[in-house]
Amino acid sequence: MSRWEPNARERLVRAAVESFLERGYDAVTVAEITERAGLTKRTFFRHFGDKREVLFAGQDILSGLLADAITAAPASATPIEAISAALAAVETVFDADWREWAAKVQQVVTGQPDLRERELLKRAKLRGAMAAALRERGVADPAASLAAEIGGLAFTTAFARWVEPANSRGFGELAREALAELVKAAGALS
Amino acid sequence: MSRWEPNARERLVRAAVESFLERGYDAVTVAEITERAGLTKRTFFRHFGDKREVLFAGQDILSGLLADAITAAPASATPIEAISAALAAVETVFDADWREWAAKVQQVVTGQPDLRERELLKRAKLRGAMAAALRERGVADPAASLAAEIGGLAFTTAFARWVEPANSRGFGELAREALAELVKAAGALS
Repeated sequence: MSRWEPNARERLVRAAVESFLERGYDAVTVAEITERAGLTKRTFFRHFGDKREVLFAGQDILSGLLADAITAAPASATPIEAISAALAAVETVFDADWREWAAKVQQVVTGQPDLRERELLKRAKLRGAMAAALRERGVADPAASLAAEIGGLAFTTAFARWVEPANSRGFGELAREALAELVKAAGALS
Repeated sequence: MSRWEPNARERLVRAAVESFLERGYDAVTVAEITERAGLTKRTFFRHFGDKREVLFAGQDILSGLLADAITAAPASATPIEAISAALAAVETVFDADWREWAAKVQQVVTGQPDLRERELLKRAKLRGAMAAALRERGVADPAASLAAEIGGLAFTTAFARWVEPANSRGFGELAREALAELVKAAGALS
């Protein structure tokens, strides 16, 4: 078998999520995932450290997208405008095709306390990446941390609305809306 | 040996933190901690699940203090006033005696990636407890989540300043100051 497996990563994620939903996260083995995906365990471990990692596969891509968009925002952009650009950039990966899979991943994560903890950490790292990118633009604390926290809340809110079965709106639109609500709430706090 | 050990919990925390600082977190065993504390392993495991838990011993107390103070705030208090009362309540446990130990615990946690992750989770849970207590007061989202995030940032900022070697100010005063800075920054975001 060649080292090159077309779409191996994506096939493994899909096989894993389907298995988790059918048989429960705890019961599923890596062997079962690779068999379903028609790939070897060796290929699995080239892509992921363990079966939990499959569910958080996109984290580094997401952190990178958010940070790059903040860095690329015009020099005149306010911290919130830079965060808005970052959330808009996420739509390039959170597209209509991915939505169905994101909803399934979410269903698996919600059912497992240790996966929910892993998700809290993931979200903390996304906020950290946004705060660091804002500081590199010269935004001082506490504004950088605060804008990143607001960006994280907007992300979480938009994501929850996006994966709802009845939703037909795009992630970008939902994120803009959530961010606007949060900025309004922030103005009302003082 | 009687089941009742005066100050067992505190003795174990102090023995553990001293051992971690002297010999490195990874090298220290539970047996070493209990020997130093003059207690048995059985007593250790009555108080803590593992050696990592010793470093996060106060988490439940802290969550309870924050939530109770939010619940007890006058009905007329704004979300930020309720958060301010919660941070002030923390000073009852973060007193001058505890400061030296908090600084040592922090030193151990900062040196270990998995302990830093555990700390991120702990902070996420403190924010969750504050948001839940605000919602019970009838504060709607996104204001409840946002005020809790700001409370969490104020906590983190105040804590970092409080444990600095040169600091001589109390946690409550530092928390009030950090919260005021954040509320001002929030007002400037929109």
